[in-house]
Amino acid sequence: MNPKVSILMGSTSDLPVMEKAAKLLNEFKIPFEINALSAHRTPQEVAEFVSSAPARGVKVFIAAAGMAAHLPGVVASLTTLPVIGVPINGSVDGMDALLAIVQMPPGIPVATVAIDGAMNAAILAVQMLALADAEIAAQMAAFKIDLKKKIVEANEKLKEVSYEYKTN
Amino acid sequence: MNPKVSILMGSTSDLPVMEKAAKLLNEFKIPFEINALSAHRTPQEVAEFVSSAPARGVKVFIAAAGMAAHLPGVVASLTTLPVIGVPINGSVDGMDALLAIVQMPPGIPVATVAIDGAMNAAILAVQMLALADAEIAAQMAAFKIDLKKKIVEANEKLKEVSYEYKTN
Amino acid sequence: MNPKVSILMGSTSDLPVMEKAAKLLNEFKIPFEINALSAHRTPQEVAEFVSSAPARGVKVFIAAAGMAAHLPGVVASLTTLPVIGVPINGSVDGMDALLAIVQMPPGIPVATVAIDGAMNAAILAVQMLALADAEIAAQMAAFKIDLKKKIVEANEKLKEVSYEYKTN
Amino acid sequence: MNPKVSILMGSTSDLPVMEKAAKLLNEFKIPFEINALSAHRTPQEVAEFVSSAPARGVKVFIAAAGMAAHLPGVVASLTTLPVIGVPINGSVDGMDALLAIVQMPPGIPVATVAIDGAMNAAILAVQMLALADAEIAAQMAAFKIDLKKKIVEANEKLKEVSYEYKTN
Amino acid sequence: MNPKVSILMGSTSDLPVMEKAAKLLNEFKIPFEINALSAHRTPQEVAEFVSSAPARGVKVFIAAAGMAAHLPGVVASLTTLPVIGVPINGSVDGMDALLAIVQMPPGIPVATVAIDGAMNAAILAVQMLALADAEIAAQMAAFKIDLKKKIVEANEKLKEVSYEYKTN
Amino acid sequence: MNPKVSILMGSTSDLPVMEKAAKLLNEFKIPFEINALSAHRTPQEVAEFVSSAPARGVKVFIAAAGMAAHLPGVVASLTTLPVIGVPINGSVDGMDALLAIVQMPPGIPVATVAIDGAMNAAILAVQMLALADAEIAAQMAAFKIDLKKKIVEANEKLKEVSYEYKTN
Amino acid sequence: MNPKVSILMGSTSDLPVMEKAAKLLNEFKIPFEINALSAHRTPQEVAEFVSSAPARGVKVFIAAAGMAAHLPGVVASLTTLPVIGVPINGSVDGMDALLAIVQMPPGIPVATVAIDGAMNAAILAVQMLALADAEIAAQMAAFKIDLKKKIVEANEKLKEVSYEYKTN
Amino acid sequence: MNPKVSILMGSTSDLPVMEKAAKLLNEFKIPFEINALSAHRTPQEVAEFVSSAPARGVKVFIAAAGMAAHLPGVVASLTTLPVIGVPINGSVDGMDALLAIVQMPPGIPVATVAIDGAMNAAILAVQMLALADAEIAAQMAAFKIDLKKKIVEANEKLKEVSYEYKTN
Repeated sequence: MNPKVSILMGSTSDLPVMEKAAKLLNEFKIPFEINALSAHRTPQEVAEFVSSAPARGVKVFIAAAGMAAHLPGVVASLTTLPVIGVPINGSVDGMDALLAIVQMPPGIPVATVAIDGAMNAAILAVQMLALADAEIAAQMAAFKIDLKKKIVEANEKLKEVSYEYKTN
Repeated sequence: MNPKVSILMGSTSDLPVMEKAAKLLNEFKIPFEINALSAHRTPQEVAEFVSSAPARGVKVFIAAAGMAAHLPGVVASLTTLPVIGVPINGSVDGMDALLAIVQMPPGIPVATVAIDGAMNAAILAVQMLALADAEIAAQMAAFKIDLKKKIVEANEKLKEVSYEYKTN
Repeated sequence: MNPKVSILMGSTSDLPVMEKAAKLLNEFKIPFEINALSAHRTPQEVAEFVSSAPARGVKVFIAAAGMAAHLPGVVASLTTLPVIGVPINGSVDGMDALLAIVQMPPGIPVATVAIDGAMNAAILAVQMLALADAEIAAQMAAFKIDLKKKIVEANEKLKEVSYEYKTN
Repeated sequence: MNPKVSILMGSTSDLPVMEKAAKLLNEFKIPFEINALSAHRTPQEVAEFVSSAPARGVKVFIAAAGMAAHLPGVVASLTTLPVIGVPINGSVDGMDALLAIVQMPPGIPVATVAIDGAMNAAILAVQMLALADAEIAAQMAAFKIDLKKKIVEANEKLKEVSYEYKTN
Repeated sequence: MNPKVSILMGSTSDLPVMEKAAKLLNEFKIPFEINALSAHRTPQEVAEFVSSAPARGVKVFIAAAGMAAHLPGVVASLTTLPVIGVPINGSVDGMDALLAIVQMPPGIPVATVAIDGAMNAAILAVQMLALADAEIAAQMAAFKIDLKKKIVEANEKLKEVSYEYKTN
Repeated sequence: MNPKVSILMGSTSDLPVMEKAAKLLNEFKIPFEINALSAHRTPQEVAEFVSSAPARGVKVFIAAAGMAAHLPGVVASLTTLPVIGVPINGSVDGMDALLAIVQMPPGIPVATVAIDGAMNAAILAVQMLALADAEIAAQMAAFKIDLKKKIVEANEKLKEVSYEYKTN
Repeated sequence: MNPKVSILMGSTSDLPVMEKAAKLLNEFKIPFEINALSAHRTPQEVAEFVSSAPARGVKVFIAAAGMAAHLPGVVASLTTLPVIGVPINGSVDGMDALLAIVQMPPGIPVATVAIDGAMNAAILAVQMLALADAEIAAQMAAFKIDLKKKIVEANEKLKEVSYEYKTN
Repeated sequence: MNPKVSILMGSTSDLPVMEKAAKLLNEFKIPFEINALSAHRTPQEVAEFVSSAPARGVKVFIAAAGMAAHLPGVVASLTTLPVIGVPINGSVDGMDALLAIVQMPPGIPVATVAIDGAMNAAILAVQMLALADAEIAAQMAAFKIDLKKKIVEANEKLKEVSYEYKTN
């Protein structure tokens, strides 16, 4: 089984956030690999890992990092595959990681999602893969309908909130 | 000729920024459409436009907006195709648009690029299309080599900067 | 009993904040409805819900959302009734939600209150309804006198704080 | 002719921004008064002016101020009529005025619009007046249709933007 | 005993912070009064209270408030005595209160101290009173020497921190 | 003639801002000295200058600096006289200077005014001197009445702004 | 044993953060001294301490402070040795300390590390000492290899994270 | 002549800022090299360039970049020599570059200077080199005395500013 998505994080301490990405890809039955590699501590390893990824079957990267979050940009510098960046909230409410990921200079984009937005990163990866895979596209459409159902159901519970002048 | 990328902007005043996206797609010979539609002024038109886009051939959206920039998120709510968001700097240095685009809640991602980062939005769209099109992938690889050449050439000019104690 | 105010929130997780709005409207004996609908997950439902609101008797909307908070702006795009926006603190101290709600472009305002300011949103709704209803206006005037009493009474407690050189 | 809306600004230097509010009210044929009164320099005058406003026919206040913008909150403390606040950009990108206006404590709301958002303040005032005046409501509905037309027309101009691979 | 300093706070919930100011004035044996009065809920009471303060003997005001903190500026608008402002951290890390207090427009200053800096507000009040009272000035000089002693003593404890390569 | 107020600035480039303080003190006929001394470049000179100030008659310091603005805090560390700090806008909208001046630790306050708020710094100095000088207090009272007059007169000009539906 | 590095902190409350610097220097067997001295409370002591440091053998300073963090800049003003600054998070997420340390004016630099980045301050000190000491340089090289090993080992643990569609 | 300092910038557009660093090193007669290399466009070139620098004689790096400024951190990941980072103001007042440079994770420090603080970066490099070179140390001491002279001279010009109540 070849990985289609490669999840990278700057530190294993990012795992509690990034598991949401892993879980979502698993639900979509999309093979993925998950690794912790530091742009700052292991630059050569990152370079080799990213360069060899297409041969492993990787189509999309998801890279997460906190603070001066360089990993997503470094991955993007080493590949022409799309790179999705997840800013991890480790300091100053995650604003440092957000700016260090999203403000990439012209030529090398990183597709940035919300601070700690690991699940959305995985959804975005799925949407990209769906461009070339009708089955994944169908799964994605079903997922979106399901999202809607969940909030419609949650709204049902608001009916139980009771006030004399509440009309619904 | 069917558009593969649909560029949307919240106002025609965003055109000077968004032309960089149009220009890059044109260089890559990727058919695209470009429109100004407001999430706030023309919500029904946006809904119809986005819903009918797959039938026109659209694979990826690029949506740009400033201030309380809702257009990218609204487009994302109406499609399962990937949506790339460009925050336009119209106030508070563009931080309002950045946060209003990138901080999407779980379930509906927007792939956000830098403030006024229209060229990078187009590159990201190309990278997504390249997943299913080897020719585009080859173009992208060539583009990246060219980027490198440009800075290497620019660096040559630094040799002309002259100081007594400069060694190169 | 027809609702005069429609409270909408982007997620049922916003209920602990928004209950303060419900409670205040209830105190003023103003009929209201309360629902959770997502601008991003259920755009069509939001459109139908907002469009049908005048027929239900709704005069004012209160819409609350966190992060890239689009719900108040989306509601405002779909109605000519006044829309009050409540930024919910879910990330970056609520600054993302505040900017995503208050920085609406020309043409489509949202009357924004403080981060997590649900009670004030309800007071503002009451003030608007009072423009056409002398009884509500009288209630509002009484409420304001009561607010004053509460702080005057609270100040009495400061008299019990005892220091040798405190003169009151 | 009695004023229905009272526009207040903290300094006559705010006039270039606030004229947009005056112009919009004029278009809607809604009588209004416009004054410069400082919460800090003329507190008694503000108190008298606000207290006497209902007798003049005022239904809604629009108050604009920059920096440590207290005027909207001070007006709100003196009336039970709705108060719309306009943060004026005079320093730190207008963030000081925005926070000083929108972050009102429980009990005394200010309906805040975007930084320098004078036109939207006037639209909000019109929406409030429309709650008790069917004619104004009809004007508001027409205004919204007109807004839509303008962007649809502006979009026509984008058709003239010409690229080889542009499809529309 | 006439109060020389009048401590005002926007809400009794500010007392845990403001007690540090009361305690310091008490240590300096400077008579003071302490009250909770809201600029927004009790504007007339604030006006009367501030106007009558000189007759009570008040020389300096210390005013504390959180969020859209108007109390210090409102007090300053009503007196020519110096007003010291204390921003209370109630939201967005206290940045809203800081900006709403410090960014006063030309003509009406507020002497602003750090967020939650109640003790420093009292020291500043003492420094002002010391301008006309040699005894207080002497106390202030002694206080400053004491401050120095405390950190010199605290530094002694660092000597107990033990590392093989620590030289002191 | 002995100086009562000592104006210090971190660089002569701050003079265009600080001249407003000099001008106001001159209007109040309060003797003052004005110097540029750097906390970072001339620490010993600052120490000597501040230590010898009381002998020159100085009662209050006004210290202005930009960026990592240490001068006001350094002056405060060297005296028990009140120190007024003026943050100069040199970078990041002056937020660095504001925070570096206002956020003083317990024990050593700086009475901070608005970014570039030199005139207010001088008014605050006058208010402090007025505590021990009835003549200055009378001047201050007259100044405040004059401030009021100016805005009342400025408001007269608004009467000339003409709209069909303007009522005043 | 003469100290090569002098660690200074503005308050003993900074010790829990600064112990990481002490620990790292100890690991590198680099003699150091550690003291708490306040730029604001003990300016003369700081001046004497810094002036006498070269005679004690000190080559590099590490200075830490929170809020309006002046200590690193004050040390830098008193020496020509390199000064490393550590912003301590005590308020507003440490942004006040960061700006008050890093934004030094031309002429007097402080080598600033991350908020609470005490370990990195010590590594930077080691790197500077290594310029003149081959043994320390060798230790530093070994340290960097060790850093790499740790994350490679940590990555091994990710292999135990198990999902059906995880490929590694 | 071997370079002792290597100045790197992410783009030749940073040259107007970075020339201040070159000029200062030239004044100190310290051989340096200056190049533009992009962490994102030319990652391999950066890796080779940094790896080969010690052989060229380089002791200290100065790396400048704007936006999501990764270059200083990438250089730091590839060397054990000290790396000085200069945040370039290209967007959001340079706050993105500052945070992306200074907030480095434990293990890999970057010695960060002020936004656009190129001259200070060079001074810091000189201070580091001075640790092993008494002649440079003497130059540095002379430079600091000169800095002092310049502001003392500048202060002389303030004597020419004339006011009736100015005493110096």
